[in-house]
Amino acid sequence: MAKGSTKRDVERRKKSKFKVGVVGATGYTGVELIRLLFLHPDVSLEIITSQSKAGKKISELQPSLEGIFDKELEPMENIKDHELDLVFLALPHRVSMDFVKDHGLDDFRIIDLSGDFRLDSATLYEKWYEKEHVCPEYIEQSAYGMPELNRDTIRNSDLVANPGCYPTSTILALLPLVKGGIIDPKSVIVDSKSGVTGAGASPKTFTHFPNQFGNFFAYGLKHHRHTPEIETILGTVSNDPLQVQFTPHLLPIDRGILTTTYSQPIKAINEELVQDAFLNFYEKEHFVRVIDQPPTIKNVRGSNYCDVYATYDERTGRVITISAIDNLMKGAAGQAVQNMNLMFGLIEKKGLESPPLNP
Amino acid sequence: MAKGSTKRDVERRKKSKFKVGVVGATGYTGVELIRLLFLHPDVSLEIITSQSKAGKKISELQPSLEGIFDKELEPMENIKDHELDLVFLALPHRVSMDFVKDHGLDDFRIIDLSGDFRLDSATLYEKWYEKEHVCPEYIEQSAYGMPELNRDTIRNSDLVANPGCYPTSTILALLPLVKGGIIDPKSVIVDSKSGVTGAGASPKTFTHFPNQFGNFFAYGLKHHRHTPEIETILGTVSNDPLQVQFTPHLLPIDRGILTTTYSQPIKAINEELVQDAFLNFYEKEHFVRVIDQPPTIKNVRGSNYCDVYATYDERTGRVITISAIDNLMKGAAGQAVQNMNLMFGLIEKKGLESPPLNP
Amino acid sequence: MAKGSTKRDVERRKKSKFKVGVVGATGYTGVELIRLLFLHPDVSLEIITSQSKAGKKISELQPSLEGIFDKELEPMENIKDHELDLVFLALPHRVSMDFVKDHGLDDFRIIDLSGDFRLDSATLYEKWYEKEHVCPEYIEQSAYGMPELNRDTIRNSDLVANPGCYPTSTILALLPLVKGGIIDPKSVIVDSKSGVTGAGASPKTFTHFPNQFGNFFAYGLKHHRHTPEIETILGTVSNDPLQVQFTPHLLPIDRGILTTTYSQPIKAINEELVQDAFLNFYEKEHFVRVIDQPPTIKNVRGSNYCDVYATYDERTGRVITISAIDNLMKGAAGQAVQNMNLMFGLIEKKGLESPPLNP
Amino acid sequence: MAKGSTKRDVERRKKSKFKVGVVGATGYTGVELIRLLFLHPDVSLEIITSQSKAGKKISELQPSLEGIFDKELEPMENIKDHELDLVFLALPHRVSMDFVKDHGLDDFRIIDLSGDFRLDSATLYEKWYEKEHVCPEYIEQSAYGMPELNRDTIRNSDLVANPGCYPTSTILALLPLVKGGIIDPKSVIVDSKSGVTGAGASPKTFTHFPNQFGNFFAYGLKHHRHTPEIETILGTVSNDPLQVQFTPHLLPIDRGILTTTYSQPIKAINEELVQDAFLNFYEKEHFVRVIDQPPTIKNVRGSNYCDVYATYDERTGRVITISAIDNLMKGAAGQAVQNMNLMFGLIEKKGLESPPLNP
Repeated sequence: MAKGSTKRDVERRKKSKFKVGVVGATGYTGVELIRLLFLHPDVSLEIITSQSKAGKKISELQPSLEGIFDKELEPMENIKDHELDLVFLALPHRVSMDFVKDHGLDDFRIIDLSGDFRLDSATLYEKWYEKEHVCPEYIEQSAYGMPELNRDTIRNSDLVANPGCYPTSTILALLPLVKGGIIDPKSVIVDSKSGVTGAGASPKTFTHFPNQFGNFFAYGLKHHRHTPEIETILGTVSNDPLQVQFTPHLLPIDRGILTTTYSQPIKAINEELVQDAFLNFYEKEHFVRVIDQPPTIKNVRGSNYCDVYATYDERTGRVITISAIDNLMKGAAGQAVQNMNLMFGLIEKKGLESPPLNP
Repeated sequence: MAKGSTKRDVERRKKSKFKVGVVGATGYTGVELIRLLFLHPDVSLEIITSQSKAGKKISELQPSLEGIFDKELEPMENIKDHELDLVFLALPHRVSMDFVKDHGLDDFRIIDLSGDFRLDSATLYEKWYEKEHVCPEYIEQSAYGMPELNRDTIRNSDLVANPGCYPTSTILALLPLVKGGIIDPKSVIVDSKSGVTGAGASPKTFTHFPNQFGNFFAYGLKHHRHTPEIETILGTVSNDPLQVQFTPHLLPIDRGILTTTYSQPIKAINEELVQDAFLNFYEKEHFVRVIDQPPTIKNVRGSNYCDVYATYDERTGRVITISAIDNLMKGAAGQAVQNMNLMFGLIEKKGLESPPLNP
Repeated sequence: MAKGSTKRDVERRKKSKFKVGVVGATGYTGVELIRLLFLHPDVSLEIITSQSKAGKKISELQPSLEGIFDKELEPMENIKDHELDLVFLALPHRVSMDFVKDHGLDDFRIIDLSGDFRLDSATLYEKWYEKEHVCPEYIEQSAYGMPELNRDTIRNSDLVANPGCYPTSTILALLPLVKGGIIDPKSVIVDSKSGVTGAGASPKTFTHFPNQFGNFFAYGLKHHRHTPEIETILGTVSNDPLQVQFTPHLLPIDRGILTTTYSQPIKAINEELVQDAFLNFYEKEHFVRVIDQPPTIKNVRGSNYCDVYATYDERTGRVITISAIDNLMKGAAGQAVQNMNLMFGLIEKKGLESPPLNP
Repeated sequence: MAKGSTKRDVERRKKSKFKVGVVGATGYTGVELIRLLFLHPDVSLEIITSQSKAGKKISELQPSLEGIFDKELEPMENIKDHELDLVFLALPHRVSMDFVKDHGLDDFRIIDLSGDFRLDSATLYEKWYEKEHVCPEYIEQSAYGMPELNRDTIRNSDLVANPGCYPTSTILALLPLVKGGIIDPKSVIVDSKSGVTGAGASPKTFTHFPNQFGNFFAYGLKHHRHTPEIETILGTVSNDPLQVQFTPHLLPIDRGILTTTYSQPIKAINEELVQDAFLNFYEKEHFVRVIDQPPTIKNVRGSNYCDVYATYDERTGRVITISAIDNLMKGAAGQAVQNMNLMFGLIEKKGLESPPLNP
């Protein structure tokens, strides 16, 4: 945790607004960050970058922003020309770490939305991401950016690894059970279903509209990169080693993740105990809503909320939990802004108060 | 135009916030109003009503609002218990006018989102809505709530008839042509396509998911009630009598209207002239974006923007224009809030600045 | 098993075509039966019934059949006026058994597509369907109509209980594991996802298009009626008592079910063993395709195929299997026709040879 | 019209089945042809070709065909190794004509599904397709493959230019009006809406699922290549020169086209006259269903039917017609098989009798 953070913040707070930049602004996560930062009352979005599209206005590429936010994309190098407080990295995995290595954390704090700093060791990273980590020294310095788990660490961190979309939905669906020692940490099965924006903005055969429309399928069985992230993070709050069976599926919708988990209790429990564990754990959390019926994706669309439902099946002796998030919000840009608010000492929900878009 | 308006406003402005209510809060338009008013910095939503659901929290019926806006629904009668500045009527056609008749305009101003005060005579109303108008005296007092057409009148009105969704998309796509005397007002063909929220929140056979999914069709040919609304309003700015051929279609999406219009010029024109007519007409309009390619519904989703494109086909000698709106926003609740801002002397875009949700 | 079956069949085979009827022809299952029976070369669809719509042509209610199959709907009583070989019951649960009780099996054989004869005891039925069974004596006589499990019994049965949609996808995804004694029958978790036609043809709030579009959610946790069906049927081939954790979800598509199962092996196994178990078990099955990648719903749309994938996760020690069917075909009408073919001694795939509709 | 046709046919008819091939079998049209030809009782699909995928089984690329039709893709050159009666060209525009030039019509008849032989002159072709026609001599020999317009010519032709999808829906929606001299041939406006399979099987940015989902837009205004095709073909049955305003839109569904047309009568007409014109014109047509309400895409999905509705608006004096087809069936592969049936002297609906897939 960089000592310098607090000092910088105090200094900045005297100014009217914090200055931030988005690196890699043309992907889905970048555009969602722009949508949120544009409205944020305490932040000024000073620079947005793109290597391949530099010189164009973001609104040429994303006409929804036409007349709202027409800033020109700049090359990444220009980051140095602005006295930024914080930079969001919306870059691909395995590219993001190069930026961190090159720029360090002295000039600005970083929230990295890729997977490059989420795992707790270079060895684990290299196993699942199949590339050598270029700056393992920063892994240790980084905080995992899930406020519900890690609020204080995030506040004081100069490098925040913003969680993956599936891990966010999964960890929030399991945290009270694992931290509370309620379930066997080896028994966890996670069946997740995500909208197609989770696959990124580049057209692929399986994301071609006629191939997705009316369709549904699993992918990445046994080997999805979010598996070690879930295990690492939940492992930090588990008494015993934890292992998850993680199976992602692709839903024919644009936004949203619904995650269903199954696990085995390790002590005598009942419905009430399970629900209370969730109600108590998330009592003060603004963005986690513990509800009494299975959540739906549309009830969180466009918002930073995570709806969670937990139940116990007496017949089978299993705990079932279900969570719903918007993968681009609580699963990416929304949570990044929540982290930024913490890092800047702002009210945590600032700029994230828009209710879900339903219908 | 009620003389009292200005006086009341001045008085209110001394207070911290304007007080408003939503009558008929459980339909799609009502819920969308709540979503917007909840965030509006200068407004306090004092009461929401529902006859059939009074006593329940709105968030029980619309769980997307859980923990955000949990206000209890009250019976309509309670309107009188709050010192409201303005009431939004999100009631069905033919019901809304009863409220106006019963409550009048002395206690609060009204924005009516139904069709009951949009046409300019009781006779025309009775022909298309097949019911006697219960308070024709208010028709004359009412302003048609399209700021781009009618800004000053709205400001000073105590009863604003909020435009229909199809008429909004159609009128904005034709206004510069009709007002500019560019096209033959008898030649207008309007081919509109709307998302299913336009059909309301009550399940019907044709809105049953399996019947709409992968489907598309026209309906209400020749007889849709929005036809006289379009003709009446465009007629007020046309030199000669105007008649439109209006054909609505139902799109298998939730939100959005795209309207394609065809018309015949009445003088020698070219591409540039047509485009300039639109650029000039909407130059100072915040919510109408004149763009240089055909608009898409997703670029306005969840926002109050209307994207408009106009072109001239030299080969055929026809003008083609296309507009896109979110039917629940610029086509209903968004435009209602825009009107409210005008009526309260607020900045017109207050509370409507959220960029479209795309992707 | 009625001894009379064979005799009747021999007699019928001399005629040109078998005569069949569909009772309850206006629901989704009824219409799908008509679509299939209309094309079947060896069958004549003599009568279709509907209590509420008798007197109307089916093509008035289902215009896709206009000019193709315009037969008039008759009241159920008219069944007796036709010398039918077989009647399909496409009636709701708890109604179907009344027909069987009233008509018996002497005049024609019956394939019942409801849940009324799928469970093996009236007691179990009454527990899950919350109604007394009106003719428990027929439960014993009935055969569970899944040819891959039960071919010979079906051939000779006069009353076939056509499987439920979820059970079909689940049982086919687990049969080689359970019958082969490969997995712990207490460890089975079934996470299913179904298109909305599975919820029937009547509009409901949760099937209203705007509520489903872009949405996804679980429902019926712990208590879905297909749970005892899966347990009963798989239990018949299991060495030890079997129990499943069954969680259905609703997909925003019209047709199709994808089922993901998780289970624990009870002996040392590996990937090859699991895959071979499926390849061997289904080697001669025309309608079950064992494939080497996760199946997709669209690859079976409109067809009677069930695609199955099985794998073993060495890391976690779990078996995962995934199946995909069209819920109206292999999950209802298609399987019913497959059963009919068996009962009539026809080639099993007769009338079911149309490839899936993809794209 | 090739004299040789009849002789060849007579010869072939003595054999059990006609032999056909599909060139360019991996696109959407190719796969749909396979789906239909596989089931056709009088045809043997001898060869399917692909330049880039030769050597692979079609079912590897299109797993819906797994176990149903696993034939290997061959290079185009192998066409000569089979004694084919007819070859379907499912190649891109501007490529198809090379095949015709190279192979001629002596060895087999050709149905070309591209646009290369649809226009009536090389000059017109070159203007709209921006490429020199390599074999203009074949243009004259070719028949436009719309049986409802051209049945006899098709029967005797050796080269059939299968109509475009938009033109099919448009021409069928206008034929009775134009041929009957009912409308002003200069007044025709065509507002068409197509599913995304119409854009082909290659992923593009605008067909990326998140960009299409919940979206809708117009494209190709004023300049779409189907414009001259519609004008050419309708022009052949029009007394006076015909010109259409054609505007295509992209629907967020996989299959289907709905076309709405507007035109001006040139004589006194009424509702009855218009409807009778359609009923009479299509009285004997199996695949055109004249219906008394606006058609829907889902009522023709997966079938070769075209549903047409025609009405007259007395108020405005305009004729409105609406047609619905499945773009891959009546708009491509289905119509090609219908043409093949004619060319082979088979019953026209052979192999095309499957009812639409609805729901």
